[in-house]
Amino acid sequence: MAPTPVQENLVTSNKAYASGFTQGDLALPPAKKYAVVTCMDARIDPAAAYGISLGDAHVIRNAGGNAKDALRSLVISQQLLGTTEIVLVKHTGCGMLTFKNEDAAAVVRQNLGDKAVEGLSAFNGDFQPFPDLEKAVTSDVEFLRGSELIPDSVAISGWVYEVETGRVKSVV
Amino acid sequence: MAPTPVQENLVTSNKAYASGFTQGDLALPPAKKYAVVTCMDARIDPAAAYGISLGDAHVIRNAGGNAKDALRSLVISQQLLGTTEIVLVKHTGCGMLTFKNEDAAAVVRQNLGDKAVEGLSAFNGDFQPFPDLEKAVTSDVEFLRGSELIPDSVAISGWVYEVETGRVKSVV
Repeated sequence: MAPTPVQENLVTSNKAYASGFTQGDLALPPAKKYAVVTCMDARIDPAAAYGISLGDAHVIRNAGGNAKDALRSLVISQQLLGTTEIVLVKHTGCGMLTFKNEDAAAVVRQNLGDKAVEGLSAFNGDFQPFPDLEKAVTSDVEFLRGSELIPDSVAISGWVYEVETGRVKSVV
Repeated sequence: MAPTPVQENLVTSNKAYASGFTQGDLALPPAKKYAVVTCMDARIDPAAAYGISLGDAHVIRNAGGNAKDALRSLVISQQLLGTTEIVLVKHTGCGMLTFKNEDAAAVVRQNLGDKAVEGLSAFNGDFQPFPDLEKAVTSDVEFLRGSELIPDSVAISGWVYEVETGRVKSVV
């Protein structure tokens, strides 16, 4: 198949990146021993906005910057790759503020059919939407602090990124 | 509590970023209608290496660039936010090539105790390691192509990023 414009952009942009690439000897474990959990939102560039230099931190991204969804990755980050701190950042204007599970399931049923709705059991039918941004940050941080899979020694902080201003502010 | 050096770096770096920020009016849905799935690895800067401009694409990251782990986010990306293409990129030197589930469980047991090992059931005790990089790319792409939650109309491609050279190469 002919490459899509998205695939062509990947190849072309990457050639330019690789031609100036000088950091091929970075170590596997993050140099600054931390992991960031943030949203997949297209308006966030974590490296630039959160000051993460190449090699410094694991960056975990999913819909909503969801802590439960990130748990497997966080355990690997800490237990196998030596990180000792978690920075969780959700953001203003998040899509997860705009729907409920039943709304999303209805869209899936309409677009993809009943069988697809059954497939939502892969994540217990829970899209992890939230109605209140700061409460969601706090509750995710509490979930991580309470998890037996995250040692008490791990520093965990929660933040909000404003897509309108580029600013990060501390929540918990 | 006093901020950690990681938190201080976030605040300081973000102030500089926000002071030059001019893209506060980007739309929520990704402008180029695609989602990238890639690894949380600290040596990857997806925006720079894969040519993703702010606002263009969802970026989903987890340990290994795992498709199953990304499923909730991908359904939201497509069904609620209108993306129609997936670019999945795993990478050389991935930590997921270096262990098996029983190794990781043994580390968790030693560091965190038996109760923590029980907590691994949150992700079915499966850390999603893989022994062969290109096979893992292919099998994740096949998983997505076969999922009833991903419409057949979605273009899905699989790639490997070389952390040693900064280069991306096409797999499937």
